[in-house]
Amino acid sequence: MSILKGNALIGQSGGPTCVINQSLVGLIQEAAGTDAIHRVYGALHGIAGVLAEDFIDLGKESNETLEKVALTPCAALRSVRKKPTREECEAALEVFKKHDIRYFFYIGGNDSAETAHILNELAVEQGYEVRLFHVPKTIDNDLRVTDHCPGYGSAAKFVASAFMGDNQDNRSLPGIKIDVVMGRHAGWLTAASLLAREHADDGPHLIYVPEVDFTIDGFLGDVDRMYQKHGRCLVAVSEGVHGPGGEPIFSTGEVDSHGNVQLSGSGALGDFLAAKVKDGLGKGLRVRADTFGYLQRSFAGYYSEVDAAEAREVGRTAVRVATGGETPHGSIYIGRETEDGQYRATFNVTELKNVAKETRDLDAGFLAGTSDIDPSFLDYVRPLVGKMPSAGRLSDFGI
Amino acid sequence: MSILKGNALIGQSGGPTCVINQSLVGLIQEAAGTDAIHRVYGALHGIAGVLAEDFIDLGKESNETLEKVALTPCAALRSVRKKPTREECEAALEVFKKHDIRYFFYIGGNDSAETAHILNELAVEQGYEVRLFHVPKTIDNDLRVTDHCPGYGSAAKFVASAFMGDNQDNRSLPGIKIDVVMGRHAGWLTAASLLAREHADDGPHLIYVPEVDFTIDGFLGDVDRMYQKHGRCLVAVSEGVHGPGGEPIFSTGEVDSHGNVQLSGSGALGDFLAAKVKDGLGKGLRVRADTFGYLQRSFAGYYSEVDAAEAREVGRTAVRVATGGETPHGSIYIGRETEDGQYRATFNVTELKNVAKETRDLDAGFLAGTSDIDPSFLDYVRPLVGKMPSAGRLSDFGI
Repeated sequence: MSILKGNALIGQSGGPTCVINQSLVGLIQEAAGTDAIHRVYGALHGIAGVLAEDFIDLGKESNETLEKVALTPCAALRSVRKKPTREECEAALEVFKKHDIRYFFYIGGNDSAETAHILNELAVEQGYEVRLFHVPKTIDNDLRVTDHCPGYGSAAKFVASAFMGDNQDNRSLPGIKIDVVMGRHAGWLTAASLLAREHADDGPHLIYVPEVDFTIDGFLGDVDRMYQKHGRCLVAVSEGVHGPGGEPIFSTGEVDSHGNVQLSGSGALGDFLAAKVKDGLGKGLRVRADTFGYLQRSFAGYYSEVDAAEAREVGRTAVRVATGGETPHGSIYIGRETEDGQYRATFNVTELKNVAKETRDLDAGFLAGTSDIDPSFLDYVRPLVGKMPSAGRLSDFGI
Repeated sequence: MSILKGNALIGQSGGPTCVINQSLVGLIQEAAGTDAIHRVYGALHGIAGVLAEDFIDLGKESNETLEKVALTPCAALRSVRKKPTREECEAALEVFKKHDIRYFFYIGGNDSAETAHILNELAVEQGYEVRLFHVPKTIDNDLRVTDHCPGYGSAAKFVASAFMGDNQDNRSLPGIKIDVVMGRHAGWLTAASLLAREHADDGPHLIYVPEVDFTIDGFLGDVDRMYQKHGRCLVAVSEGVHGPGGEPIFSTGEVDSHGNVQLSGSGALGDFLAAKVKDGLGKGLRVRADTFGYLQRSFAGYYSEVDAAEAREVGRTAVRVATGGETPHGSIYIGRETEDGQYRATFNVTELKNVAKETRDLDAGFLAGTSDIDPSFLDYVRPLVGKMPSAGRLSDFGI
């Protein structure tokens, strides 16, 4: 396989993360240093911008701008929620040919890996040489092969910090508090709430993830038990929890552009559960619900330094592998090595088909019963969130 | 007026802030350095703990613990939502006498100032010498006399950072996004969303505060106009917005322990407004709502350094004034001096009655029409939030 020369195109797709632009900037900076890539274009709004030839010249951006963009949450190239049809993929390939795009980097989740996979199959069929790479990102942490996903560490830090604060709030003014966390199919982000538990009586006292069937009766029993025990109860619940048959606990009736039931961007699940608690356990109880919403993926100025550095390196790795001449297509993944107790990330490439379509649930070993997360999860998640705050409390010495 | 010697008691009341423990630690540390105060007690859960004699000895806490507590959000002494009756105030005074409490510091909002005021009147009537001081805190920034309230700067920074991120999210995946911000009567916190607007097309595109009457028709017209202009629309709306007659836009029917309609701890207002937009402007629109909720007052690890330092100093000032022998009671307030463009806070004391009962709305000069905040507000708020992130964006150079 020879070194392919031509232009590069970058797109961003799906829900934002706080560090998705680190990968973009890693791609741009690494591409600038290779002879194989002549010009670096950006497609606005992902595959939609490819189809519309809505391109910008990323090579003209100053390094100062790029470094500022890297620290800015959400897709600087703007994003899209669109799985292209086969016909659209064929049209995209024609656009590649027209602009001599020989490198395409698609920053996104498993849908983006699938898009790159389909484009690759078409390109091979047509004998058009192009290097197609998926650059992973998702706060959901639900991609296969990779130890963890760029974007997850920052979102996990946000969720853990929110619970750490809300645990203090709930301790200040006791009651039952329900916090709804993002994650349609996988409980990785909700599980990160466990990082907030420093003392034995700290919340979250209950953690519900989509990997475990949820029932209202079980929930009410759990809340009652914790409220009896602690005089308060802080609950972490994933937006994707569902009944034993997979049926949603509650639906607004709205669907998103993929035809999925809309979960985020509404406080309905939290309000529904709060009402159930009042109905089931007592009208007089102080019950509140918050839904963390888009802040989890977009909050400015608070992120995991580890996550940011890894997201940058994932972008750089994609260009190095693509221009290395040995791998024509693939998805970059992060491996974990632990030496002398020190976490270290490695960066490598896997086949697109290994990442496309299927997602990855929270490991079964990280589940603890029906309403908690196993402490072993902390070893997994701690290195990813980087520096966390730690809550102080008074010793409550008697007078 | 002689120097009064005896024990000091500290309580925390009302909704938490991220820096309320800075004031607590300022009080404890300053009290440790004065001969007038023998022992420093804390009442758990504010006035409830006073009545129950539920005291802890704060003088035994190590400085290491105190400094860690100072950085921890929410009331380390735990809080309460309780306005004591006159009878309860009389009982509290008996508790003071029993424990030789000669200094009482109550960290809270205007209700706490009122409690201190009533206690003071009773003490004077009964000839019991006790120094009664209100130490201000509230994310709502709605106390009188003071230029701004400890707790506000950190909450404002959180809200501004959330909007800065959500503006990027909304730019990434365009649609109509409604974010509900805390503030029952005053729009100070919602107004802080203006800090997120760096470019002319940045959101929030619309800002609604309780100081201006809100109508659904006006709101829909505004959203439609901004959506036509920008292809997207990010809305900041205070939880306290109401119609021309003061009637709530929407109510869950729930009331809090003060008998007020429950606003926070529910996503209902945001969901209601989102549904109105879909009904009024088109079912096919992408409309989402988030309610920032308790994160605004409790998020761990993200705060304004200016706010933290001022909250500490407010606590220190309270002890200095109380033991100074010139002022028997009062509320500490922050003044603002600007020298050579440099912001500087001053700390002083005012009468309890000046702060009790009444609250302070957003200054009329900071309002801009019915759906925006005047840029002059930025001069007011910028020094209070301290270091803020700044969003980078690509130049979108043509290819």
